[in-house]
Amino acid sequence: MEFSVFRKEELLKVEQRMIEWLDKTQDTKGTLYQAMKYSLAAGGKRIRPLLVLAVIKSLGGEVEKGYDTAAALEYVHTYSLIHDDLPAMDNDELRRGKPTSHIVYGEAVAILAGDALLTQAFEVITRSEISLEQKVALTVALAKSAGANGMVEGQIEDIEGESQSLSLEALKQVHDKKTGELIKFAVYAGSVLADAPEIVQQQLNRFAECYGLAFQIRDDILDVIGDAKELGKNIGQDEQHSKSTYPHLLTLEGAKAALEKELDEALAIISQIETEYRPENKIIDMNLLKDMVALLRIKDEQVNQ
Amino acid sequence: MEFSVFRKEELLKVEQRMIEWLDKTQDTKGTLYQAMKYSLAAGGKRIRPLLVLAVIKSLGGEVEKGYDTAAALEYVHTYSLIHDDLPAMDNDELRRGKPTSHIVYGEAVAILAGDALLTQAFEVITRSEISLEQKVALTVALAKSAGANGMVEGQIEDIEGESQSLSLEALKQVHDKKTGELIKFAVYAGSVLADAPEIVQQQLNRFAECYGLAFQIRDDILDVIGDAKELGKNIGQDEQHSKSTYPHLLTLEGAKAALEKELDEALAIISQIETEYRPENKIIDMNLLKDMVALLRIKDEQVNQ
Repeated sequence: MEFSVFRKEELLKVEQRMIEWLDKTQDTKGTLYQAMKYSLAAGGKRIRPLLVLAVIKSLGGEVEKGYDTAAALEYVHTYSLIHDDLPAMDNDELRRGKPTSHIVYGEAVAILAGDALLTQAFEVITRSEISLEQKVALTVALAKSAGANGMVEGQIEDIEGESQSLSLEALKQVHDKKTGELIKFAVYAGSVLADAPEIVQQQLNRFAECYGLAFQIRDDILDVIGDAKELGKNIGQDEQHSKSTYPHLLTLEGAKAALEKELDEALAIISQIETEYRPENKIIDMNLLKDMVALLRIKDEQVNQ
Repeated sequence: MEFSVFRKEELLKVEQRMIEWLDKTQDTKGTLYQAMKYSLAAGGKRIRPLLVLAVIKSLGGEVEKGYDTAAALEYVHTYSLIHDDLPAMDNDELRRGKPTSHIVYGEAVAILAGDALLTQAFEVITRSEISLEQKVALTVALAKSAGANGMVEGQIEDIEGESQSLSLEALKQVHDKKTGELIKFAVYAGSVLADAPEIVQQQLNRFAECYGLAFQIRDDILDVIGDAKELGKNIGQDEQHSKSTYPHLLTLEGAKAALEKELDEALAIISQIETEYRPENKIIDMNLLKDMVALLRIKDEQVNQ
């Protein structure tokens, strides 16, 4: 299946599911509901839910089993953006070209909408039509990825690292927690929902590390060379905030080389799985994941802009 | 067993468990860890964990099975206090006689410490040594109680109801969500962990409704007549904020009568369970819960202060 078709069809279903759970579980449909829905509907690349579904499909599982978990994961990502945008954090007034939650609803409601989305994510996973074992495995993993040793810790380290120069190793660690953990969860969730064996889960975890790192390096590169339209935010912001970035630490050429290295390793891992993993009655086909990797390469026309 | 002994011994274990989980799951022991620990260790009445354990004990279950869930519940309660105290919400600088989280650590860290405690709660429950069914039942219930149709919605309605006069019915509804839902969860969790049958769970849910409402009416009464020491906050605050309260809507005498009514009903329900529920090999003894109910009565010396 072509990735562009897959993305269009499957994301529609996940986005429907995101709103359906909200409609089903929130009775008053008042301010809180409106604020949650506003941020959920604000769009974005939906990389995390796509990864969940692409991994399931690649491993020959049933994509439908992943809709709820993909929706829950996007709830967590959305909550993190709402809180990151708050005046006390990054103080961003625009996100994906639209006013951020606290600009529209005020700070109190924005904080609470984030809280509610995070809470709801765990309800969605544990009420999903999957096995008890899968519910528990995914809840433990999501809490670990999103929590005090994962994404939230990454955000703290990111704040503390602002306006001071980090080493490459320290920068990697911040990103691994802040962005990488949820990407690793996405890939893990896909492998659990496709009933993949432990060995494949481990290989995919390494794939997710490369993918997550590539994702972040690319983001930093586009902040230097890219256009605001693709990023959905103003470019040059990292430089303005004198944040440590990959182009900053490695030069632009060095960052591009680092990006290619991660993408090549990611590809090598999934090719290896494709060759080695031969379950009965399942077709293993990594094309969707290969396409997702290819989309992270910096194209020449982007460089020349 | 006497309640005072039970409280002392068992709370110690829950409080140990609260810190143990933090130590076990947070690696860097940096700012985030410190902020989470600060608020967890700030004390408080620990009503919710006590309810979990007292229900288990009353129904002849193993109290030890409840430590993790009781700890997780106190994580959620603690997160809600940190966020409620923020400048954008109640803007409180003191909580239980100590500076609030954002005063000590700044707003960004306070928001993130709250986020991390909420997230961690779900990890603690799903990693607890209880059955898969119990893990899932408790996760679903906690997310519902704490989320967009429960505590968070209650907080939104509380903010929206400020400086406007609510009807008694509207006030009850706000409190039922903001405070009542977590109390109902505590009682539900105890009954699940003691393997109580559906009918007993339903009776206990009604008990929890009475107990939660009594708890809130009492809090409002003490704000008028009580001393700041017992409440751990400045008294007369509700009046200053011109919030709707039970004494305000019912007069002080009326509020006291309403409190007694709820406590009497709570007692009647647990006495009924004691008479009717006769499981094999288990001793049903509601004395701990009766003591917890008795502690909510307003004593004469409190009135005369």
